[in-house]
Amino acid sequence: MQRAPHSDVPVCVLGLGLIGGSILRALHRAGRPAYGWNRSAAAADDASAAGFDASSDLAATLRRADAGHIVVIAVPVPALDPVLAAIAEHAPNAWLTDAVSVKGDVARRVADAGLTERYAGGHPMAGTAFSGWEATDAALFDGATWVVTADDATPARAWRLAASVGLDCGAVVVPAGSTEHDAAVARISHSVHVVAEAVAITAELDPAAKQLALTLAANSFRDVTRVAGTAPSLVNAMCEANRDALLDALDDTIAELISARTELADSGTVRDITERGYAGRKAYENARRTPFVPVLDGAGWQRTLREAGHAGGVVTALPGS
Amino acid sequence: MQRAPHSDVPVCVLGLGLIGGSILRALHRAGRPAYGWNRSAAAADDASAAGFDASSDLAATLRRADAGHIVVIAVPVPALDPVLAAIAEHAPNAWLTDAVSVKGDVARRVADAGLTERYAGGHPMAGTAFSGWEATDAALFDGATWVVTADDATPARAWRLAASVGLDCGAVVVPAGSTEHDAAVARISHSVHVVAEAVAITAELDPAAKQLALTLAANSFRDVTRVAGTAPSLVNAMCEANRDALLDALDDTIAELISARTELADSGTVRDITERGYAGRKAYENARRTPFVPVLDGAGWQRTLREAGHAGGVVTALPGS
Repeated sequence: MQRAPHSDVPVCVLGLGLIGGSILRALHRAGRPAYGWNRSAAAADDASAAGFDASSDLAATLRRADAGHIVVIAVPVPALDPVLAAIAEHAPNAWLTDAVSVKGDVARRVADAGLTERYAGGHPMAGTAFSGWEATDAALFDGATWVVTADDATPARAWRLAASVGLDCGAVVVPAGSTEHDAAVARISHSVHVVAEAVAITAELDPAAKQLALTLAANSFRDVTRVAGTAPSLVNAMCEANRDALLDALDDTIAELISARTELADSGTVRDITERGYAGRKAYENARRTPFVPVLDGAGWQRTLREAGHAGGVVTALPGS
Repeated sequence: MQRAPHSDVPVCVLGLGLIGGSILRALHRAGRPAYGWNRSAAAADDASAAGFDASSDLAATLRRADAGHIVVIAVPVPALDPVLAAIAEHAPNAWLTDAVSVKGDVARRVADAGLTERYAGGHPMAGTAFSGWEATDAALFDGATWVVTADDATPARAWRLAASVGLDCGAVVVPAGSTEHDAAVARISHSVHVVAEAVAITAELDPAAKQLALTLAANSFRDVTRVAGTAPSLVNAMCEANRDALLDALDDTIAELISARTELADSGTVRDITERGYAGRKAYENARRTPFVPVLDGAGWQRTLREAGHAGGVVTALPGS
């Protein structure tokens, strides 16, 4: 027997690519009222033909959402500003979240559009190498983490509704500050992509060994360079939007490699980096997520939520409304 | 119906850990006469109990191999020199190969033991996270590449017998010079391990985001840092034995990352590294192996073999003897 959705407030999904389309499918699976919009009529038609409530008329879709619905922005970064302007015009009474990977950048754009008091940022930590409506999957977020930002200005109602979307998509919700989120993803995703690119390039930089390297490359090379196969435009968009945090992360990685290089040159060993790297990997493997029930009122509730998320806390259900 | 083995010369495997034990199992599967030695009697007993011909008496095992058998050295690097001394004493008429990951270092030790004219180096490109006889698997090398070194001093008979071992284990054989092999593996394995350690460390270097980073880490971090979970002593042994080639590879990776960092700081984009990294990954995915029949006599046959291996050639069968 299916459990009830975590909210009955309808969800308006803007953008029906891999992430937005999968959100629409997952919400439908959960019995949550949801509808979508896509700029290209072809994807909207495909979604409609698959039995979903989808349109390519943005103004009409947003007027519908203006009745206090929660809007999920899942469009590419270059389309963010025009979509936010349309929301401010046609749906000032909607609540607002998003599914974009850098939160400080989106929060600034939301503030520029005058929508901060309707907004809690979101970031589902899931994806595949594929894109577009044809790649969508109702199970894409099952068991994944889904960040909902709790900054000092975040409204409780927006946080609750954004979290309900993540939960109804099958994810567990992690509260975090926007800045802290961006620092973390710079280190576990954006710089990781850049490093994988450097490894893929290094394999071919010695002309005397290039072809042999490609012939001999086995599991370690295959796994480490897998994300270098991501479309460069996608990696660029993530990295460029998170420039400052990514610079910090790259500086740390470069310093570690220079330190290892120096140890190897001076004393013939890489003992320091292998021992600390092993400990780092084990800390990741042993990291525990601890469910907790969020309190969404009282002074400083946002800080309390951030601290809980920072300590490994995850939200798997919302308090009774 | 099973095909005949690629040679009927018996194989003597020294060291029955993951690699040596799996070689013994794979040769047995192929119908090739083979027997093994292990320093600890426990592993030798386990192998015997499993139906294999195994002993913990090194001198007796080597006297048996002295009848022109091929010896495969699969012991840890610290045990190489005493094992080579024992071979020079008890089995000067045996042929010799090995399964150690750095070839220049082993070739020097073999020369020091006076065994160069009996030796062709070997390196099966396979492994798992596990070790010891209990982890051995007859299918470990199926479809893998197995380097057999063809240096100017390599004797044809040793090359043929070393290659026959790789083929009978289910691998395809790639001829390469020792120096070229070590340069290639520095770039597709040793530096890749060091970079993975640096990524695993970087995730935890920002105290304000450390726990959150571990909670949010998803597929890209998991895949890139997987090899950081390898026992530090194993990574150290590989890296230390390949110091010079690894320093070159690390220098290239560091230069790429500094270049990307500079582009990001100066112009807000990482376009250059993402485009070249993507191309590098695609070159790896599209690399083709072309079977060819090696010619093992005539002036400069070793160079011809090296060039064929460098151009993507692999050996899947030996010419009739």
